[in-house]
Amino acid sequence: MADHEAERPPLALKASLTSGSDTWHSTGAPGLVRPFLLADGPHGVRRQGEGGDALGIGTSVPATCFPPAVALGSTWDTALVRRVGAALGREAAALEVDVILGPGMNIKRSPLGGRNFEYLSEDPHLTGRLAAAYVEGVQSSGVGACVKHFAVNNQETDRMRVSAEVDQRALREVYLRPFEHVVRTARPAMVMSAYNSVNGVAASENPWLLTRVLREEWGFDGVVVSDWGAVNDRVAALRAGLDLEMPPTGTDAEVVAAVERGELDESVLDAVIDRLRRLAERVGAARTRAPEEELAVIRRDNAELAREAAARAAVLLTNDGVLPLDPSSDAVAVIGELARTPRFQGGGSSRIVPTGLSSALDALTRRLGAVRFAPGYAVDGVADEALVLEAVEAARDARVAVVFLGLPEHAESEGFDRTTIDLPADQVDLLERVAAVAPRVVVVLSNGGVVSVAGWQHHANAILEGWLLGQGGAEATADLLLGDRAPSGRLAETIPLRLSDHPSYLTFPGGDGVSVYGESTFVGYRHFDTLGRPVAFPFGHGLTYTRFEYADLRVTEAGEDGWEVTFSVANTGDRDGLEVAQLYAGLVEEHPTRPRSELRGFAKVELRPGETTTVTLPLPAADLRTWDVRGQRWALAAGDYAIRVGASSQDVRLEATVHSDGDRVLTPLTAQSTIAEWRADPAGREVLAALLGRTALGAAQSTVAPELVRMFLSIPLDKLRSFGLGVTAETVAGLVAQARAGQERLLATGAYRRP
Amino acid sequence: MADHEAERPPLALKASLTSGSDTWHSTGAPGLVRPFLLADGPHGVRRQGEGGDALGIGTSVPATCFPPAVALGSTWDTALVRRVGAALGREAAALEVDVILGPGMNIKRSPLGGRNFEYLSEDPHLTGRLAAAYVEGVQSSGVGACVKHFAVNNQETDRMRVSAEVDQRALREVYLRPFEHVVRTARPAMVMSAYNSVNGVAASENPWLLTRVLREEWGFDGVVVSDWGAVNDRVAALRAGLDLEMPPTGTDAEVVAAVERGELDESVLDAVIDRLRRLAERVGAARTRAPEEELAVIRRDNAELAREAAARAAVLLTNDGVLPLDPSSDAVAVIGELARTPRFQGGGSSRIVPTGLSSALDALTRRLGAVRFAPGYAVDGVADEALVLEAVEAARDARVAVVFLGLPEHAESEGFDRTTIDLPADQVDLLERVAAVAPRVVVVLSNGGVVSVAGWQHHANAILEGWLLGQGGAEATADLLLGDRAPSGRLAETIPLRLSDHPSYLTFPGGDGVSVYGESTFVGYRHFDTLGRPVAFPFGHGLTYTRFEYADLRVTEAGEDGWEVTFSVANTGDRDGLEVAQLYAGLVEEHPTRPRSELRGFAKVELRPGETTTVTLPLPAADLRTWDVRGQRWALAAGDYAIRVGASSQDVRLEATVHSDGDRVLTPLTAQSTIAEWRADPAGREVLAALLGRTALGAAQSTVAPELVRMFLSIPLDKLRSFGLGVTAETVAGLVAQARAGQERLLATGAYRRP
Repeated sequence: MADHEAERPPLALKASLTSGSDTWHSTGAPGLVRPFLLADGPHGVRRQGEGGDALGIGTSVPATCFPPAVALGSTWDTALVRRVGAALGREAAALEVDVILGPGMNIKRSPLGGRNFEYLSEDPHLTGRLAAAYVEGVQSSGVGACVKHFAVNNQETDRMRVSAEVDQRALREVYLRPFEHVVRTARPAMVMSAYNSVNGVAASENPWLLTRVLREEWGFDGVVVSDWGAVNDRVAALRAGLDLEMPPTGTDAEVVAAVERGELDESVLDAVIDRLRRLAERVGAARTRAPEEELAVIRRDNAELAREAAARAAVLLTNDGVLPLDPSSDAVAVIGELARTPRFQGGGSSRIVPTGLSSALDALTRRLGAVRFAPGYAVDGVADEALVLEAVEAARDARVAVVFLGLPEHAESEGFDRTTIDLPADQVDLLERVAAVAPRVVVVLSNGGVVSVAGWQHHANAILEGWLLGQGGAEATADLLLGDRAPSGRLAETIPLRLSDHPSYLTFPGGDGVSVYGESTFVGYRHFDTLGRPVAFPFGHGLTYTRFEYADLRVTEAGEDGWEVTFSVANTGDRDGLEVAQLYAGLVEEHPTRPRSELRGFAKVELRPGETTTVTLPLPAADLRTWDVRGQRWALAAGDYAIRVGASSQDVRLEATVHSDGDRVLTPLTAQSTIAEWRADPAGREVLAALLGRTALGAAQSTVAPELVRMFLSIPLDKLRSFGLGVTAETVAGLVAQARAGQERLLATGAYRRP
Repeated sequence: MADHEAERPPLALKASLTSGSDTWHSTGAPGLVRPFLLADGPHGVRRQGEGGDALGIGTSVPATCFPPAVALGSTWDTALVRRVGAALGREAAALEVDVILGPGMNIKRSPLGGRNFEYLSEDPHLTGRLAAAYVEGVQSSGVGACVKHFAVNNQETDRMRVSAEVDQRALREVYLRPFEHVVRTARPAMVMSAYNSVNGVAASENPWLLTRVLREEWGFDGVVVSDWGAVNDRVAALRAGLDLEMPPTGTDAEVVAAVERGELDESVLDAVIDRLRRLAERVGAARTRAPEEELAVIRRDNAELAREAAARAAVLLTNDGVLPLDPSSDAVAVIGELARTPRFQGGGSSRIVPTGLSSALDALTRRLGAVRFAPGYAVDGVADEALVLEAVEAARDARVAVVFLGLPEHAESEGFDRTTIDLPADQVDLLERVAAVAPRVVVVLSNGGVVSVAGWQHHANAILEGWLLGQGGAEATADLLLGDRAPSGRLAETIPLRLSDHPSYLTFPGGDGVSVYGESTFVGYRHFDTLGRPVAFPFGHGLTYTRFEYADLRVTEAGEDGWEVTFSVANTGDRDGLEVAQLYAGLVEEHPTRPRSELRGFAKVELRPGETTTVTLPLPAADLRTWDVRGQRWALAAGDYAIRVGASSQDVRLEATVHSDGDRVLTPLTAQSTIAEWRADPAGREVLAALLGRTALGAAQSTVAPELVRMFLSIPLDKLRSFGLGVTAETVAGLVAQARAGQERLLATGAYRRP
């Protein structure tokens, strides 16, 4: 013991280890724990160069710019995302980065979310699967991944103060679920706590979130780091389960004082140090600065992968056959400043300096020879008639006008939310003018957040939603337009007809420090599909250059654990293509209390013309569970579940129904259980029958009107004491004891399962 | 002192006074406080007879059955409601009743609410004004009124356990506002605490609700009684501010023990007794059992008033001119069992035994002589082809078929919510069959909760929504159909096209003990009007037999306190009529953060043909305030307010805009105030400018991209400590101190007002 005492590091040193040493390094202590270098991600390794501003935005070392999350999410391709993660990890390791601050995996609650381009989807299943693939990929290279922003950080407005007011079901089923999946299956090295509060408690100082749920329920064994500047109270944060404050705020003395005053247990610091040490062991191996030539190889490989990923991300929204372009006969005019000055990533902490970049104009010119180009508009949004006239002239002479539209840099960034989903008015005006003269029009979009197509869709023979595609986006776009690759992206978020149709419209982003998540679990397509409300393009939608047919749906039971869903997909068109087969499931209900259909599986399959493949997707019963607020557990409701397979949440091709008896978990009867609940339980029914037989209650029940019987059934047993029927507290306690004994007896027979 | 000690009643006696002595009496103690007799209302004095079941439903002394709240609410007539209240009070006094348990004034959050027939409106302004009139009326007779159910008791499903999860703005602006108005202006003798919980705390054991808000903020000086059986924990309830548990549960010993253990301060009991005493003084005078002949006079007077009120309550939804019926030429067939067997009140605790009752069939027969009648359907909803055929025959021979449709008794009651707003299918079927042969069809509806008209409206030449009209309903209906009186009811709740259009559809009534109020402040028409979504009939809608024109809108400032809105209404038709002129107001916003338009005033005016009147409605600035969550106070936002005057929330006839500078209340700048908030404040701006001039921050600000500037503005001042810009905790504290001093200086100049 004395030996250990002698080795114990001083309190001040320990305190210092719970905060960074500078903006990007954790604090190290020789022989105790080494410092880590953290680098912003998620779509490129943003390692800060020497000098420059503290946050290093705009001065980072050049890095491969992969497609940002909005585009990665649209790939619906876990294998690809895993490769991207591994490539990022390799590049990070070569730059001596220990942990990449990514993936971002908050749910796109509103199309206005300013940071939506950094997030994967409006759906928790898709987000969780893709984020897990990313983490697995990064960590396969020996580098740590840091999932963020934990949790419920779905808006930028007042993000450092706002409290996300979200009910427990939405919290568990929508906002925490993807994090739960990643933590449980991919074991990320770090979790980043968010700026905002969750139901009134700051995420970075939230013991329920950081300890009870993250560590105790989900078994997270890594390090919790704060978002940059998220900690308000060091001591409260440590007590809640946060390990590392970033960047440092010079407040170590507060931690020391708290320990000395007995307000913070010193063992909390020891636990932090232990976790930092274990992290060092996990990510230590990869950390070697690579020589320039090796870095060059990595960058070349990664640039190629970035282009491949971009090609798999763009979503073909509409196409009347104009695409793919036929270079032999299509005289193409390229229109739009964004064809020359690409937007390929968003603003804020994720912005990196790419290792290479070309424009769509360059890429198309390289393939087609000289094309007629007109910028058509300035990205600042100021209408310019001369530019429009020039574009109209260019379009008039072409057989196809390819019009590049999108959002300017300043319209979307970390730090603020958007207020509209409209394209800039001057761009829509340009499109109308071009469409009036051009025989055919293809619109290519560049935008990080959803833009509305409702006002101008009819002007386009095809729309390719390119999102922000990273540094390989221009080449990938040219590949897709010309048919060198088949479009295979699918919408990871609904494109609504109007912003005001969106379930978050009236409550996002809130005000007064409060954001009310009024739509509850009905986020995105869950709202539209449950209510049958029309959208511009549904979740999961995306076209390609061939056709697919679905057949032979079989749903087979897989024991206690759920089902297996099998079906065939055939390429019945005449070109190679990739299909994203999607599995949705939902409890069949008369009045909806939960989303009608939720994504529960997907597979991206590549098929030649005439080829057929069999897809098998597991449907674990666990995935059909919802959060039982009263029982504080996941529960599987008994009932019929609709199983829907198709090409989007609305394009259902195959449908079946399965029945589940639910998880039949014993719910202990109490004095607060209603008469109806007593009657529904086999043990309770028996006890109640005996009571009704021997009191005035039985007689009363038989003489009253049917509506009074319904009222009676909804009454908690204990309330019978108020009705002058001779039921006392002792009566109630006796009944409960009898019922519980009966339940225990029945438990042994297998009538219930233990919770 | 010793004298007082000697007189102190024993603890057990005091404890007993905080609970009833039986189901309807409070406990009395000679020389200390007399017992009170409470009687269910609200639309009739439900005084329990001798014997019968404990709750006395079905065995009460006959009483005048006034129109239930659903109908009173539709009168939009405060003067009439005051008279009804006074009449109820007079009848109660004659029966020695001390307090009538009414009015019910919960907001109709969902059209499915099982007890909606007992509530006034979906709108808090209308509810508050009408409830205040009711209370004033009752109490003008010397009897106490008891407003209920406090608070947020908007559903019957699991009402004894459910927690209404409602954000603070909706709570304050929608659900508490009507109670606040009544407590502040009408001083009700009692408030009844609800069964449910509010945000997790039982309403009957909720110190915030019963003490902080009700007594301290609003100044309530009466007695808080529990809903029958609402108390789970006597001690917690007393501590929270509940005075009287009803009915008794035999748990006085728990109270005594808590005092003895020091867990409950004995002064709490003394305060309760003091409040009971003061209540005795207030309601004592009226309490004399009237001789039978006097009671007969009261009942005769009240029956007449009940009929008058009923006539003012029915809402003429559509009319192509078929109404009023012309007895000289219209051969009338009366169809529908409800014409013979009227529904005139709802089920549950409010159900009374009327002093008289006739059917619409009787009433019409008396006026028209023999009419052809066919029941058409049985109220049990079982289709009966023979009844249909008989009705079709009756209709074929008539010039007008008056078809009485509605909801059966068992479809709506206290104790459960509805699951549909459709009429019974057999009734709709009957209507179709009748409409196919009858030259003209008038539909008269009897229902406590909203029913959809979407599927059958086209079959009717006129629809009279009669709600539940009390014992005078049949005569009143005949008066209206024949034009002896003009319809003048207006919808106090929206009739949606489809249930699924309703903002509460996906979250009402919740489950697992939780009901999420996801629509926030956008309740009822606030949702439809803000989103521009179509409805069947909007809030405030109602026709009559003449026409009204609106003109000459003037909005004049009324000092600091708001505005006065003046306009003229002219009867430009050829019959006498009553118009309900409605005033709506709302902040003009680009993206809605609050309802577009909210009822802020109304006046029911009676005009002869050709007559014009000037209506003046006050629009206090206080009524435009919203709840400031961060500041925990009512706040008036600066901006333009649209003032809309018209005949429904959508039938706007006159419009104006006024500007308000807001209440300019000083908001103290803190370290948590954002840079934008510092810049918006005159004192903060000055301090910040000095800081920017002397730190790296100023330089940084001028060189970064515009999107980073936006991000910067949203950062709380304190967060600058994280950005390595040389800002320390001391810097921040100094800036705050400077800014606060500056604010105090400016306060003296009148630049702000003190909160």
